[in-house]
Amino acid sequence: MSDARSLAMALVAESFGVDNGELVIGGVGARALVEAYGSPLYVYDEGVMRRRFRALKAAVDGFARVFYSIKANPAVARVFVEEGAGLEVASGAEYLQARAAGAEPESILFAGPGKSAKELDLAIAGGIGEIHLECFEEIEIVARLAARLGRRVPVAIRVNPGPGAQGGAMRMGGKPLAFGFDEEILDEVVCAVTRHAALDLSGLHLFAGTQILDAKVLLAQWAYGLGLAVRLGGLIGRPLRRIDLGGGLGIPYHQGDGALDLAAVSQGVRRLIGERAADPLLRSAEIVIEPGRYLAGPAGVYLMRVRNVKLSRGQRFIVADGGMHHQLAASGNLGQIIKRDYPIVAATRLDAPLLGDTQLVGPLCTPLDTLGRQTALPQLVAGDIVAVLQSGAYGLSASPVGFLGHPMPAEAMAQDGGHRLIRRAGDFSAPLVNLTLEPVASA
Amino acid sequence: MSDARSLAMALVAESFGVDNGELVIGGVGARALVEAYGSPLYVYDEGVMRRRFRALKAAVDGFARVFYSIKANPAVARVFVEEGAGLEVASGAEYLQARAAGAEPESILFAGPGKSAKELDLAIAGGIGEIHLECFEEIEIVARLAARLGRRVPVAIRVNPGPGAQGGAMRMGGKPLAFGFDEEILDEVVCAVTRHAALDLSGLHLFAGTQILDAKVLLAQWAYGLGLAVRLGGLIGRPLRRIDLGGGLGIPYHQGDGALDLAAVSQGVRRLIGERAADPLLRSAEIVIEPGRYLAGPAGVYLMRVRNVKLSRGQRFIVADGGMHHQLAASGNLGQIIKRDYPIVAATRLDAPLLGDTQLVGPLCTPLDTLGRQTALPQLVAGDIVAVLQSGAYGLSASPVGFLGHPMPAEAMAQDGGHRLIRRAGDFSAPLVNLTLEPVASA
Repeated sequence: MSDARSLAMALVAESFGVDNGELVIGGVGARALVEAYGSPLYVYDEGVMRRRFRALKAAVDGFARVFYSIKANPAVARVFVEEGAGLEVASGAEYLQARAAGAEPESILFAGPGKSAKELDLAIAGGIGEIHLECFEEIEIVARLAARLGRRVPVAIRVNPGPGAQGGAMRMGGKPLAFGFDEEILDEVVCAVTRHAALDLSGLHLFAGTQILDAKVLLAQWAYGLGLAVRLGGLIGRPLRRIDLGGGLGIPYHQGDGALDLAAVSQGVRRLIGERAADPLLRSAEIVIEPGRYLAGPAGVYLMRVRNVKLSRGQRFIVADGGMHHQLAASGNLGQIIKRDYPIVAATRLDAPLLGDTQLVGPLCTPLDTLGRQTALPQLVAGDIVAVLQSGAYGLSASPVGFLGHPMPAEAMAQDGGHRLIRRAGDFSAPLVNLTLEPVASA
Repeated sequence: MSDARSLAMALVAESFGVDNGELVIGGVGARALVEAYGSPLYVYDEGVMRRRFRALKAAVDGFARVFYSIKANPAVARVFVEEGAGLEVASGAEYLQARAAGAEPESILFAGPGKSAKELDLAIAGGIGEIHLECFEEIEIVARLAARLGRRVPVAIRVNPGPGAQGGAMRMGGKPLAFGFDEEILDEVVCAVTRHAALDLSGLHLFAGTQILDAKVLLAQWAYGLGLAVRLGGLIGRPLRRIDLGGGLGIPYHQGDGALDLAAVSQGVRRLIGERAADPLLRSAEIVIEPGRYLAGPAGVYLMRVRNVKLSRGQRFIVADGGMHHQLAASGNLGQIIKRDYPIVAATRLDAPLLGDTQLVGPLCTPLDTLGRQTALPQLVAGDIVAVLQSGAYGLSASPVGFLGHPMPAEAMAQDGGHRLIRRAGDFSAPLVNLTLEPVASA
């Protein structure tokens, strides 16, 4: 519990500020933000995102270009585009979101296991930078669509690495997966792609892990990807133009999670730069990494107001106006095996003594709506603000926002003491847009 | 695997039909439905809902009135209102959805642990049937709002049963919970409520379990609720007008789940009717049960089209156009401890021989988007339709519909060979409504 607290306070110290016991995000107090935009509220610190992008860019300087994986949080994509990031998309809607965020088509890459012909058509017609092929049927579909549009489309082969692939001490390959092609059949895939004149085999995409906190694992994965690129270059008899080494850069969520060590990444990258320069099949390629969570996660805070405080059989419950419908991952219901608390702080009482073993629950009439299980929070009263940290990625966009019909929260950006709205809050008294029923006609 | 298959086929036999190997829902073939409304698609068989409602109503006839808990699926509430059901809501938006579905305010009950003053005000001003009080702060808020509106509001005390409460062989009470008041402090709660002239203490609401498949557990819970009502009636010196025994009636999702035995429920209810008639504190009360899942779940089918079929290291993957973004619970990410398959069938090849151990995945670029883990499905090709059964409750409305930006699926109702749209499908090329960003102004 004290460790969880120390993670939360370390994150506050790293990314935000404290003013007289109040959490300060981008130079703006939590209370002022909630007064301006209502509660619950998502706030993103633009400065944190820019600093994280620049730090990562510097760590891989001379080795890789940083793309932003828009699925982590489409609402903040523009910030990274302004910093020079390309964007990785995984649906037709994300392609459009990427374009709306200012990305040029040639700086957009499109991966995903079940792309529809309509989505592919949109991306090809728009002049997308690269389509990452995931199965044999998709090779044929992309070739047909490209031919029909009279385009030659840059494509990459997404590879699911073989059993020999090691990440640090951990085996990272050899599993059956829905993503990409098994490394073992790369020759066959190359044949299937290169026989189509409409497909320009420009790249390789390595299926990456997720939430990697160990620099050694990440570097081993990147080194493996370079080896694969050499093999693929050998098969086609020329260097690839682009090598996408994937994302997967993690951030600490729970007690005991260490942050990814960027200095160690940077040091490892120096060696990879040397290897790359020595190999004619790698020298000219643009290497890409495409994190999402790592760039956006620590910048986001989900703010909620306390509605009630109650005791049941000695257990304290804080009932807040926000919950799992906006922050599913923090409720432990987005793929987690073990439900553990996200870092949570009392944004209006950061300097108050903590009471242990508190449950933080939301307004939904279900026991699933629990964001804090054994949380250390101070004495709180209705109106106090509680903050869930590390909420900038896989937050609102990955949550069941229509469940029980509570209004959409606003999303705001804060930086240098200024703030602005990026998404207006909903209103429960207006029909939930796009969750509205059509008038019922008779059968 | 064969058991999972037999559950799926038993459900098809119970609620739907098969015509020449094709799944028939409400007398309409799966192919015709997908052609009419697109894929993926939610279809609800109106006849199944009406039959389930009538069967449950008959089983508890003379004992309880059946309400529908709208949070299970607001899209189908009108069907149950037409059958004479009251509605249980858990948010201001659900109150409005209930009204839009045709429910009279006095047939609406409002429970939930974190109701806002705005939601309460809306419900009180509208003349709601009963507000279920969940904590001391809420008693004061409701009293204040009612007094301001010059209303006397019917309220119920929601009770979290004490350690003595047994459901069948299972202890069902004694746990700390965010819902309602601990039974041990009922005297204190009664004092806090009855001192307000604006509060009309009309009822009791027993916190119920969820997904109960054993009639004995359910009946024990109901018997316990009656005992509590007698105790509460004794405290206030008069009978209650309404006793809400909760919902929690389960449906089979997985291999080994038995269906709730309605005949056993009906038999147990005869005894409860006798007990009730003998007690002057119970005789005049309206008893309410408020299932959601039980009524709507088996009527709903989530249909998806196959996009690709692929092999990875000997494992077959069916990649469909639907997934966890529309059916989170089926992906095992809505509170499940162990991820097990929902009943899944090939809606276009019900009579084809099965191949075992198939993974059914959706189009999202994440391993979380897996709906079938070890599923028995026949040989399938792109364009075939796969159906996730038991999808009528906690389906679309409880799913992260904005995740990766895929379009909202349509929802349709089918009955007696006819069908109609109840929610139009979205389009990825239009901005996701209510997930649209405001234009970014400068800071």
